[in-house]
Amino acid sequence: MDIELRNDIQKVLGERIKKFRLLKGLRQTEIAKSCGFYKSGYNSIELGLRNVSLINIYKIAFALDVPVSCFFNDDEFYKFLELYNENQK
Amino acid sequence: MDIELRNDIQKVLGERIKKFRLLKGLRQTEIAKSCGFYKSGYNSIELGLRNVSLINIYKIAFALDVPVSCFFNDDEFYKFLELYNENQK
Repeated sequence: MDIELRNDIQKVLGERIKKFRLLKGLRQTEIAKSCGFYKSGYNSIELGLRNVSLINIYKIAFALDVPVSCFFNDDEFYKFLELYNENQK
Repeated sequence: MDIELRNDIQKVLGERIKKFRLLKGLRQTEIAKSCGFYKSGYNSIELGLRNVSLINIYKIAFALDVPVSCFFNDDEFYKFLELYNENQK
């Protein structure tokens, strides 16, 4: 797998995680703490700089209260974005 | 996250990967080779003994020709199982 595709995969995950964190009104430090990560490590995940492990992906999904599949499936992603937006109103 | 939950998460992923590999009639060595893994490393993923990385999850999905989300979403998993079964007939 070439480096560009790797970067894209990591970036998409990071952007989705960030989107949900912001919708929940949480700070990076809060998510990092509930996952047991350093804030800098968590930040680099959002920036797409990390090849996150399966278990850490689950930790983040639990902290954000979203199913893991919404990081990987577009329909699920948009469904949960909408759900969150509704809850904000 | 407790160790039992971690093990369960890794086990579910491993079982789904194995299911698709068998449906495609592929051997572990073949998938391992196309992913650039050692056969023993790939085997331990199927056994749920590895905390696989994001990029390696994608490599496996590409090798099996399934979307990554079918490892994490039950509906997607069964949908693709059925698709594969149909193709076998």
